[in-house]
Amino acid sequence: MKIAVCQINPVIGDINGNKEKILKGYQKATEDGADIAVFPELSLTGYPPLDFVEKKAFRVKVNKANLELAAATNAKTALIFGSITEFEDNVGTNIENSSLFCIEGKISVIQNKSLIPNYDVFDEVRYFEAASEVKVFEFRGETIGLSVCEDIWNDEDYWKKRMYPVDPVKKQIEKGATLLINISASPYSYGKRKARYKMLSTLTKQDNVKLVYTCCAAAQTELIFDGASMCFDEEGNLARLGKTFCEDYFIFDTDIKYPPILTVESSFEEEVHNALIFGLKDYCNKLNFKSVCLGLSGGIDSAIVAYFAVKALDKESVYVTLMPSEFSSEGSIADSLKLVENLGIKHNIIPIQPVFETVKQMLDPLFNNKPEDVTEENMQSRIRGLYMMAISNKFNHLLVTTGNKSELATGYATLYGDMCGGLAIIGDVYKTDVYRLCEFINRDEEILPREIIDKVPSAELRPNQTDQDSLPPYPVLDKILRMYLEENKELDEIAPGIGDRELVKKMLNLVDRNEFKRKQGAPVLRVSNKAFGYGRRFPIVQRWSRE
Amino acid sequence: MKIAVCQINPVIGDINGNKEKILKGYQKATEDGADIAVFPELSLTGYPPLDFVEKKAFRVKVNKANLELAAATNAKTALIFGSITEFEDNVGTNIENSSLFCIEGKISVIQNKSLIPNYDVFDEVRYFEAASEVKVFEFRGETIGLSVCEDIWNDEDYWKKRMYPVDPVKKQIEKGATLLINISASPYSYGKRKARYKMLSTLTKQDNVKLVYTCCAAAQTELIFDGASMCFDEEGNLARLGKTFCEDYFIFDTDIKYPPILTVESSFEEEVHNALIFGLKDYCNKLNFKSVCLGLSGGIDSAIVAYFAVKALDKESVYVTLMPSEFSSEGSIADSLKLVENLGIKHNIIPIQPVFETVKQMLDPLFNNKPEDVTEENMQSRIRGLYMMAISNKFNHLLVTTGNKSELATGYATLYGDMCGGLAIIGDVYKTDVYRLCEFINRDEEILPREIIDKVPSAELRPNQTDQDSLPPYPVLDKILRMYLEENKELDEIAPGIGDRELVKKMLNLVDRNEFKRKQGAPVLRVSNKAFGYGRRFPIVQRWSRE
Repeated sequence: MKIAVCQINPVIGDINGNKEKILKGYQKATEDGADIAVFPELSLTGYPPLDFVEKKAFRVKVNKANLELAAATNAKTALIFGSITEFEDNVGTNIENSSLFCIEGKISVIQNKSLIPNYDVFDEVRYFEAASEVKVFEFRGETIGLSVCEDIWNDEDYWKKRMYPVDPVKKQIEKGATLLINISASPYSYGKRKARYKMLSTLTKQDNVKLVYTCCAAAQTELIFDGASMCFDEEGNLARLGKTFCEDYFIFDTDIKYPPILTVESSFEEEVHNALIFGLKDYCNKLNFKSVCLGLSGGIDSAIVAYFAVKALDKESVYVTLMPSEFSSEGSIADSLKLVENLGIKHNIIPIQPVFETVKQMLDPLFNNKPEDVTEENMQSRIRGLYMMAISNKFNHLLVTTGNKSELATGYATLYGDMCGGLAIIGDVYKTDVYRLCEFINRDEEILPREIIDKVPSAELRPNQTDQDSLPPYPVLDKILRMYLEENKELDEIAPGIGDRELVKKMLNLVDRNEFKRKQGAPVLRVSNKAFGYGRRFPIVQRWSRE
Repeated sequence: MKIAVCQINPVIGDINGNKEKILKGYQKATEDGADIAVFPELSLTGYPPLDFVEKKAFRVKVNKANLELAAATNAKTALIFGSITEFEDNVGTNIENSSLFCIEGKISVIQNKSLIPNYDVFDEVRYFEAASEVKVFEFRGETIGLSVCEDIWNDEDYWKKRMYPVDPVKKQIEKGATLLINISASPYSYGKRKARYKMLSTLTKQDNVKLVYTCCAAAQTELIFDGASMCFDEEGNLARLGKTFCEDYFIFDTDIKYPPILTVESSFEEEVHNALIFGLKDYCNKLNFKSVCLGLSGGIDSAIVAYFAVKALDKESVYVTLMPSEFSSEGSIADSLKLVENLGIKHNIIPIQPVFETVKQMLDPLFNNKPEDVTEENMQSRIRGLYMMAISNKFNHLLVTTGNKSELATGYATLYGDMCGGLAIIGDVYKTDVYRLCEFINRDEEILPREIIDKVPSAELRPNQTDQDSLPPYPVLDKILRMYLEENKELDEIAPGIGDRELVKKMLNLVDRNEFKRKQGAPVLRVSNKAFGYGRRFPIVQRWSRE
């Protein structure tokens, strides 16, 4: 059997556009003599469609497109795509997240999703009901079991602790499935692809079954879907692997013995590098931004974001602005200019001092000689935000933010200042990982100037300021943050590994207290298993206290 | 039987503080000879605890407090409170949202929540499993059925369309319950109290059962819980009704025949007025803000928010700033000063022109004589935001935003400009409803100057600008928005009632396109059944199109 794996990039809500994309892939599969063409989870609506699902007019349009897609199928090639279906009842949402198997002009089999994820970035119980039955069916000598994303993530033999009491895929195997076809929209985070490979390899080997996993390659605001569709033979070998972070199309022929693919994931640096570039690129594509702007501080964060912008678009489309103040070091300008030259991008220099002076003068009667404090520090950052938003507005550039995860966590950022922007490129990357990414980028030649990488991190908002005046050294801070955020540990679990309980306590309280800033921050491209934003939900008003 | 209804205001995460509050109420109930003291849903943790529930250290602390509360009970008065409980299993979250009945030093009955809401602002499936059984038990001559919030909202006889297949309360009645005790944290929206009254009155009358509904009186960031606890006799009469928007404590004696209470809700204006004042007040209390600041534009929105701030705190704690520009009308200043006088608050005047000129001058080389456009309009708004944030930082005032729901919906607001602030006071109130609230406030005397109410709405960011240059008249706009947002209708359902399909289409697209602004907006106090923020989830990157 020949299966065409169609790893597309759907746009949420663009039913007609997605339909055309599916039709195009299906036609190619037919030309290639495929028995089946497979598309990802909710490929017709884009994933996640969120509250669009609650809109009747949306579902009506989707249903119409479901029928049109089915009607377009021939007798040669079956089409499997992901969409929403509905049923009549007076209890519940009556909406399903479905895999539709179409052939000869008709929807022949519908398998609804059985396991409805509702954790981290997933809110599917809000919309979808669980499948009431799990089927298999015969097709050209294979017994096929269809499933949707989460359905393959609950193997009793594999997981010590499971999220759901049922295992739909096991049921399909018990019913004699020889070929499992899973359609997915599985959000990327580093390490997940390897985990998926291991799980699916174990499953297929153990149950002596073939498996096709098809995932979209898309960025949807903060969520990145990496593609990397996987086809396994019944011995647990990975026979075919889709490209990462881009659309792909390939044939998996079950009669061919492929050499097993053993490596599914690159280094952390390479993976995250590629993920962030794709995330920014797809955001611009889908919202029709032709250019990006950002402020260059002379520090490592804005430098690496400028680099990512050039990779995501091209050097002609990236506009950087240097906004020095009285507290900017000589190096800040010189180093930024070196970066500008290395990247071959356009730049402007607009000092903030005259505006800073005017603002202070205007507020003087009210501030009445009160000593300068964090107010004036924030003011400088906000004047830069004002400049950058003016530039963004005037030229229709997308302004991107340059804050990293360590800063966002501790609130070491100015709301409405350096936090201005439409997308936070490295908001899910710790400062120490930013350094690792820099070394990766510079592996063959010095793209990011060494001076920028080596300098002591500073916000340069007062004389001789360094980040370490307010924060512990980044290796220590990031160790604390990683345990707190990613591993969901608390003070007493974190403190022993750090050796300074008071410091850990101070940092955790800082993270909690700065929830109000993050709530108003730009969407963060997610590359870890716990990013700030949609998947992490803490109240602003709270008094959780640590003794 | 004497039941003490303890309508408290818990702080999320403050386990010790909430425990003390429960103990205090319980002691009073004992002194008053009550058989039972009842506290709201999750009264020990505060509602909604969100991802705190996923934290093991949090659950350990809660469990310890559960046992301490139980240990503090005597033989005279039973204690019912809401908390989290856990059980051991290797499938699922194993966490429950529970009602605990304690007496004589022990937890005697635990009834877990059966219906786990996961729509609008509710995400409870993320944390809680549904109860595996529904019980009743005997206590001093009554057969008691405990339930938690949502459990009473699924009556088969009452609702044409239900959300859940089971009805736990019906089961308790079938098991012979004579007294239903429901603990709740039911988010306020106008009209909901009346709906609740009608539903509970029908239920108690029909099934000939008494019912005690205890709700918290709290504001938790955007969510407001109005209290208004209700006690029904078995004839469906409302015997006791708690105060609204404040803590309360009262005894419901089932042996007394109370005169039925027939009115549970005041006018829209009075209710929303009180809700917003409570929402702001509790935000300040819980985050320890002693003062509020805001910018006064001379328009109705900032005027009414200044009034709410005075009511929530006091006139000594409200600081307003007038920030005129070359486009400010004469009236703007004079009218604002009249308001300042009426409210008896402190004010400053800080013109933005010098900063505006300096910023334009600094950007001039880059902008290179490009004509002025929305860039310069936003710039003025952002300079005001810069001023206000400086004032907020310097004096530790809470800056509140003054945008209304019509503006937030259409994006008629400047990100990082007038959208700066920690809490959006009237962000869930349409412009036309702002007018209604003004008339209510002025019902006895002119507090909000007539000139402000009567003037043509304008952002005053360019010469002779009015809101209606960009938007349809507010009565038309709000009619469209209400159908779109609250009633979830689409173009073809809305257009006939408006008569201008193109206009409706333009407005709906405007709402969708401005999702990016709202994502970075301040939390909005929720008073309708569909507010912007947590309960309404649409993607920023999407291409839903209307033909």
